[in-house]
Formats: sequence, structure tokens, C-alpha cells
Amino acid sequence: MNPENSQVAIDLLIYPKWIIPIEPTGVTLSDHALAINDGCIVDLLPCEKALKLYSPREEVELPSHVLLPGLVNLHTHAAMSLLRGYADDLPLNTWLSEHIWPAEARHLSADFVHTGTLLACAEMLRGGITTFNDMYFFPAAAADAVRQSGMRAALGLVVLDHPTNYAADADDYLAKGLALRDACKDYPLLSFCLAPHAPYTVSDKTFEKIATLSAQLEIPIHTHLHETRHEIAESITQYGVRPMQRLHTLGLLGPQFIAVHAVHLEAAEIDQLSLTGCHIAFCPTSNLKLGSGIPNIKPIHQRGINFGLGTDSAASNNRLDIFQEMRLSTLLAKGVNEDATLLTAHQALQAATLNGASALGLDQQIGSLLPGKAADLCAVRLDDWMLQPCFDPASHLVYTAGRDNVTHTWVAGKLQMQNGLPSNIEIQQLLARTNIWHNRLAY
Amino acid sequence: MNPENSQVAIDLLIYPKWIIPIEPTGVTLSDHALAINDGCIVDLLPCEKALKLYSPREEVELPSHVLLPGLVNLHTHAAMSLLRGYADDLPLNTWLSEHIWPAEARHLSADFVHTGTLLACAEMLRGGITTFNDMYFFPAAAADAVRQSGMRAALGLVVLDHPTNYAADADDYLAKGLALRDACKDYPLLSFCLAPHAPYTVSDKTFEKIATLSAQLEIPIHTHLHETRHEIAESITQYGVRPMQRLHTLGLLGPQFIAVHAVHLEAAEIDQLSLTGCHIAFCPTSNLKLGSGIPNIKPIHQRGINFGLGTDSAASNNRLDIFQEMRLSTLLAKGVNEDATLLTAHQALQAATLNGASALGLDQQIGSLLPGKAADLCAVRLDDWMLQPCFDPASHLVYTAGRDNVTHTWVAGKLQMQNGLPSNIEIQQLLARTNIWHNRLAY
Repeated sequence: MNPENSQVAIDLLIYPKWIIPIEPTGVTLSDHALAINDGCIVDLLPCEKALKLYSPREEVELPSHVLLPGLVNLHTHAAMSLLRGYADDLPLNTWLSEHIWPAEARHLSADFVHTGTLLACAEMLRGGITTFNDMYFFPAAAADAVRQSGMRAALGLVVLDHPTNYAADADDYLAKGLALRDACKDYPLLSFCLAPHAPYTVSDKTFEKIATLSAQLEIPIHTHLHETRHEIAESITQYGVRPMQRLHTLGLLGPQFIAVHAVHLEAAEIDQLSLTGCHIAFCPTSNLKLGSGIPNIKPIHQRGINFGLGTDSAASNNRLDIFQEMRLSTLLAKGVNEDATLLTAHQALQAATLNGASALGLDQQIGSLLPGKAADLCAVRLDDWMLQPCFDPASHLVYTAGRDNVTHTWVAGKLQMQNGLPSNIEIQQLLARTNIWHNRLAY
Repeated sequence: MNPENSQVAIDLLIYPKWIIPIEPTGVTLSDHALAINDGCIVDLLPCEKALKLYSPREEVELPSHVLLPGLVNLHTHAAMSLLRGYADDLPLNTWLSEHIWPAEARHLSADFVHTGTLLACAEMLRGGITTFNDMYFFPAAAADAVRQSGMRAALGLVVLDHPTNYAADADDYLAKGLALRDACKDYPLLSFCLAPHAPYTVSDKTFEKIATLSAQLEIPIHTHLHETRHEIAESITQYGVRPMQRLHTLGLLGPQFIAVHAVHLEAAEIDQLSLTGCHIAFCPTSNLKLGSGIPNIKPIHQRGINFGLGTDSAASNNRLDIFQEMRLSTLLAKGVNEDATLLTAHQALQAATLNGASALGLDQQIGSLLPGKAADLCAVRLDDWMLQPCFDPASHLVYTAGRDNVTHTWVAGKLQMQNGLPSNIEIQQLLARTNIWHNRLAY
């Protein structure tokens, strides 16, 4: 019936104990296998059928693991991992103006960004993150680090109106960013967002340019929005309107727009986000830690607005750990609204995978285990004695396990993390470079 | 000057990279050593002096670690670790009445409690917890498990007015509890609390008996209080007053009283807690996960009310992880009040150690590294590459590290956890017993 020579040759067949494919939603499969070829998922099917149909060059058996799409970190400033815990327990304005910005003014350079981004990539791969959406200076140095790591990233082409060590003015930021995008166009794991820093650092004129460029180039826009009450009050003073209204007037809101934070939203603003098809990157740890407030996922979720999860940088988190953000998101949704049924474990997993991919316009490529998508995957081992008993693997991923339980991370079918270490990053060398920056920053 | 024979013989000298003694507050020491003899701390002093003064039978060098008091889990139902993730994403009443209580009615037994408590002890020791405050049925079985583990615990002598598999009525619960206390009086690591379950399961008459017993025996009272709005509304219907007012009238509030949860407090109730010298056990993960609400630490902290941190049970958390509760407590304090300066890293560490000890009346024995106190300690290794760089070890303990970074846990000078495993609990045997219960519960 199934003679050997009728089997289809593929690169890899993975047999985990469970698979959570994210699409269809809310499903946990047992006795299934994932077939991968040429970096892509070719099939998700019962093990018995897989053994008959496919002849894999490599097989990976994961008898105590759950396999799911790689996690998407929808907002970070990866290079700031060098500033992990640099200043804590301070209000946002003090933290930025007296600690973070002075440190950046003194130290910001391509080497800082390369080292910090590589450190972030290592940490993220260790924790099952396969894609991140970045916003930082010297993105060409970040691109080099990302390519070395083997991760997928959407790099933000950062734009501000004031000068930094990286660029002189808005046009300079844009020119450098677009040149990088051109230089990377043959590398399929990198995509780009236009990344105007925030309403309080970018002028109307620059925002208008960005809206035009986004439409011309068909790339997303990624900006901090309504993070603090202070930001909103300042905008009302300076522009007479709240920041979101200003950006709407300037033509920025739409399905290509990712609003990062969105902690403080009025009902009409939620309507506007919904009507225009914007996406939100929630960063709950960072919002709480900086005292910005508590984002409320409930009305966003109810209005069908797409939202993903971000860590923000290690300077305000202090981990690049999407497991923590999943856990915190669902706990906050339940706690703020006094409703334990909100943001179930499966919904939190979707927020951390497919929703992030959708925000980046990458949902045809990643975010779920549909055949045809790239094999961006992570495996989480659930038989650690500290996690017993286990009644439901989806619940365990969100409420019980952590990134330390991730055992394998694949990006486009390549195993980029196993045995606790990234495949292409030499940790001792990275630590030596990190230590140099630590010494410069600490003294 | 310091001839060999003038050195004092001691059991153990620990040289960590850093020591956070909790008392004095806010201090991180470098180049210090902790001297331990006969289970107690005898000295905390500069390494150089320690080498001259003491002749230890054992030395432990911890070159990348921070040493701090063992963590205190101020509220749990340890045996419910067998119900970890048994039912999630459900409101408290449904969760209790349709899932947890029926499971308990079918399965509750001394063996269930022994297995579940041993599993909890193993998990807690792994995460640096040396003391926990328990409330559950069959406390004699819990006591056996605690003694096997080598941990310190305050066992709750649970009291309800309705019958369970464990006891028939309030007098029966009390009689069994007090008999256990008598039977354990020669075991120094066990202490006891009277543990009336909650205002909605305990009658006035029983509360009055408990108040009298607490005064006679000089032991704390530990009860759930103001966990949900529903509980408060029910009390107003049934008793005409909010639960706390009822307990106050019944004479329960005072320095021996630990209010667990305290999510919903009016200003006058905060005054009352402060004036009467009550303690609070905050369980933020559980309160959020069950949709009970968000406890606000700010006014409690400002009024000087002593508060510690609890995990609640693994059925509503789903980890017995005080690192998570420290992180979440400080994040919530900052986020709810939009003030990043609230509950600093050092304050969160104090809540998780000394404050818990004070609530249990054990602050003369544990909770800080003062000479004379028991050597209940944990060591956390901070040189994992995922935690780099490290500017401040206190910040790293709360915001960056996790229980997986704990390397050693000592209770009364005995090493009860190292290399990821408890010293006195055979994990494979425990897993086999856990698995039997898992199968009974799952089908």
C-alpha cells in the first residue's frame, strides 16, 4: 500500500507529545507530527500517517514536550540589554532623562548596538522567541547581530527630530534606515518597520513623511503611543489634541500601524483603533515597572483589535521573556476586570505568536503551524518535576512553565537553540564583550 | 597576634560575592562572610576578619552568588499542588464549587495531603523558600511531609463549621488540630496558627472560640479576608457588616492576626488594620488569576502595616514561587499607583523574608541575617549569561533572576537543597506518587 519509494523525502519530522498549532484556535493535538522541508512546514498530521507518508532526513522525538510556533516579541530595544537593571525604581522621566539618555549620549555606538543586540538575541532564542520587532539606533549593527544569531526580526528604522550619535536630523535617520533596508533586501529573515520614536520626539512634518513612505514602501509603522498620562498632557498643551488624534489627523492610523503601549485609551480612541485596523503591542511589565499604568486588554480584545506582546527593553523589564509577558497579560486582564475568564491560556499563546506576526504583516509567513508557513518553532519540556502534575499543556505554558523549560528553538527550519545555548553565538566571547560595556557603564 | 588556637570553631562559613542581610534595611554587602554554628548565625563580618576569627568545619565559597535569608511563603495550601492547573480561567465561585471542592470531596485523604505537601516542599526548597504558612486539611500528614523535607513551617489548624473527609464539625477540627500541636511540641521547625478558613465558612461562635484559644496559647490566627467583593456583599446580607468589621467585633483583630488577601479594603479598614497591629499576606498572582481584584500595597505600606507575600496554592497560581510574587508585587504597586518609586527591590525582598517572619511571630528566629537567628538561607547565582550585565544584585533578585537561579537552600544551618534537588526528598518516588494522584484526578 505504501511502498518505500512512494514516501516523500523531507528535511525534518518532529514528534512532540503535544502540538499547539495556534490555528485552528484553542486546539492541543496529541500523537501528531510536524513535517518540515526547506525551512517550511509541509504538513501537520497524525504520527501514524506521518511515518507512512514521509521519509525525513532527520527526526526529532520530543516525548515530554509541547511544540508551538516561535514566540514573537512585538516591541523591544534589543541593544539596551547592556543597560539591564542600570536604573530601577524610578519614574519614567527621571529614568530616561537622568539615567538612560545620558548613558546613551556617552556610549551609543555601532559596537554598543552590535554587542547589546547579540546579547538580546541569545536571551530571546533561549526563551523560545524567534522574531522580534526592534527600535533602536545603529540598526545596521543590529542587523549584523540578528544575521549572526539566525533569528527573524523586523528592524525599526528609527526616526527622531533631534540628533544623536547615530544621525543628525529626521532626514538623516530616514536616509540611513532606508539604505539599510536596501542593503538587506536579499536576506529573507529581516523585515523593516518605520519607527518614529514617539509623538513627543517627532514633528508633524516628519510624521507626514513617514506616512507617505509607509504607503509607498508598504511597510509597517511602529511607534510608542499613549504610554503615560504625562505624554498625553504634553501633547494637549503643545498640539491641542491627544497624541493619537494628532497621528490620526496626520494620516498614520491604519492596518500598517503598530501602537506600542497604549496604556491610556479613551473609549473613542479604542473605537478609532478598531475602525482604522491598527495593531497594539502591549508591554505590561515595562508599563508597570515604570509606573506608566496598567494596560487594559479587555476592551481591546472585545473590539477585535489585534494585539501582541512585547518585553520593551531589558532596561525597563528586566528580562526579554515572553513567558513572563503572557503570564502577566492574562493575570492583569483577569485582575483589572475582576473576571477570571478573560484572556485564556490559549488566547495568551495566540497573542504571543500569531497576533504579533499579524501586526508585523508576517502572518502569511509565521505565527501558526499551518502548512506553507516558515518552520519557526519552539519546544517546551513539561516533565520537569517542578511542573507536575500537568492536566493541560496550554495552561502549563502560560501559568506554570517558564522560559527555562524551553529546550529547542527553530527559525525557518534551522535549530538555533538547544541545550540552553544559541547555535551561532559564542557565549563566552559575548560575555567578554558585555563585560567591557558593563565596566564602561558602571564607572 | 591571632594564633591558630585562638580561633573559634564553628560549623560553617559561607563566602558569597554579596550578602543582603535585610537588617539593616537596604544594604548589600560585598567581601563579607556568614558564620554559622549549631544551626544559628553567629556572625556576619568582613571576609578578612572571618578568616582570622573562625575555624570552620565546612566552608562554602559562592563567588558569583548573593546570599539572603530564606524566603517566607506567607500563605499556601501546600497539598493542593496535586491540583496544579486542574482548572483555570474560571471565576472563583465556579472554580471552587464546580472543580476544587468536588475534587477534594472525592479524593481528600491523609495520603493526598502527604504527597501534595511533599511535592510543595520540594518545589519551595528548590526556589529558596525555607518557611511556609499552610492551611489545609489533615495537617498531621502535612507535618510528616514537612519533617521529612527539613523545612520550617507554620501549620494552620484549619477550622470550618461544615464537615469534610477530615473532620465533622468545628470542635472536631479544633480538637484534631490541637492534638497535632501537642504531638509536635518537641520539633522546633514546626509552629502553628489557628486557621479559621474564612468568614463565609466559620460561624461567630467558632470565631469566638478561636479568639480565646489564640490568646490562651499565644499563637497567630490566619484566615482569608476580603478576597472578593462577593464575600463582602454576602457578609453584609447575612451579618449586616463587612467581614472585617464582624471579625473585629468578635475580637479577632490584633498583632496575632494575619489577614490573607485583603484585596478590597476601605480607608477605615486600613486604619483599623493599622491600629490593631494586624498583618497582611498578599497573594497577588492568585488574586489576579481568580479575578478577585488587584491588592493595593501602597496605603498598607504607607500606614506601616506589616505585609508579607504568599503564593496561595498551586491550584490558583500555578507556581509556589516567591520570586514571581516579589516581581508581581512591586510591578503592581508601581502600576496601580502610577509611581515607579513604590516598593523598591530591597522593600520587596524584605516583604518576602522578614515581614513574613514577623507576621508569624518568628522574627526573633528568622527573616534576616542577624547573629542569633537561625541560619535559614538561600543563595542565588547571578553569573548566568542570561542575567548579564548585573549592576545591582538586589534589583537582579527581584526584576531579573528567578527561582531557577537559586543554587542552595539552608534551613537551620542544614543544606536542604543543592544541585536543583531537595536533600531529603527522593524525587522519582515522589513523582510516582504524584502520578497516581494525577491519574485519579484526571479521569
